[in-house]
Amino acid sequence: MMRVRGVGGTTLDDVVSASTVSKSQLYRHFEDKPALVRAVIEFVGERTITGERERLEKVRTFAGLRRWRDALVERNALQEGRYGCPLGSLANEVSDQDSVARGKLHDLFMAWQELFEDLLRRFQREGVIPQDADVTQLATGFVAAVQGGYLLAQASRDVTPMASAIDMAITHLHLLAREQDEAS
Amino acid sequence: MMRVRGVGGTTLDDVVSASTVSKSQLYRHFEDKPALVRAVIEFVGERTITGERERLEKVRTFAGLRRWRDALVERNALQEGRYGCPLGSLANEVSDQDSVARGKLHDLFMAWQELFEDLLRRFQREGVIPQDADVTQLATGFVAAVQGGYLLAQASRDVTPMASAIDMAITHLHLLAREQDEAS
Repeated sequence: MMRVRGVGGTTLDDVVSASTVSKSQLYRHFEDKPALVRAVIEFVGERTITGERERLEKVRTFAGLRRWRDALVERNALQEGRYGCPLGSLANEVSDQDSVARGKLHDLFMAWQELFEDLLRRFQREGVIPQDADVTQLATGFVAAVQGGYLLAQASRDVTPMASAIDMAITHLHLLAREQDEAS
Repeated sequence: MMRVRGVGGTTLDDVVSASTVSKSQLYRHFEDKPALVRAVIEFVGERTITGERERLEKVRTFAGLRRWRDALVERNALQEGRYGCPLGSLANEVSDQDSVARGKLHDLFMAWQELFEDLLRRFQREGVIPQDADVTQLATGFVAAVQGGYLLAQASRDVTPMASAIDMAITHLHLLAREQDEAS
């Protein structure tokens, strides 16, 4: 509900109407709306990062990276016409209003970035990309390409710009790999 | 107000309280809240694209592109601790709820992308990047890097990840330029 209507457009009364719990039960679990929003962030975040960890941990080659990209874009085409990133949408709406929620979202983005850093270090160990590549900067670039791609997909109701944004990041790795091959 | 509280967290009553107009005056101008949100998108969008057009139109070299990047990141560090993109924040919150607003935001992102396409075509004409570079894909990648960068800056309250995201896009152009120089 917060995903579709936005956090600001969802009241605790809306949550009660849409669920089978009473308002008193809801308040027993969540002191106030910020507490509920933070629980939603934890739930969505855990699910997102767990899924991404499973998929990214397996990637050891450019072919694997492309399969990850295809799967991410395809899943986004299938989420009932919404197209935004669950985490990105929450981050955009709550960051300026709730510093605890913002901190949780920051940690989740950092966890996602670390999955890319691990992947890039595997690529370095296997000699796919240069040893001196700036893994942190590249991983930040990947998270930004994914998030920026989600946002453009959301505004255009089309996953094409998301695919293009991630492709630029992957092509960048290819160029780094090719430079290394030519130097050796 | 919509920027700080979110669109969903801002009522027409809030707007009346914060302004010097009466509720009847407000309703004379804006039939309902969606009409006000759309007017906000037009106002913020016009200002954003006009500013970006002025800055990007001048860019003809990598040094110029870096100056554009420095200015964008610096402006974001100075917007009173908010860090999100005015357009991106609106897009994230309203896209799934108001198709007219979503369409306006899509047009604004496309206008921004076209500014990058024009810049990249100038780079091609001047021989900076290869003639066969995919200008549309690169321009999409730049808009996504900017938007993803804004989002990470918002979640971390720090412009560093935004700078890294845009730097990856610029470094990518550098690699394309270097490949071309080596081939010639």
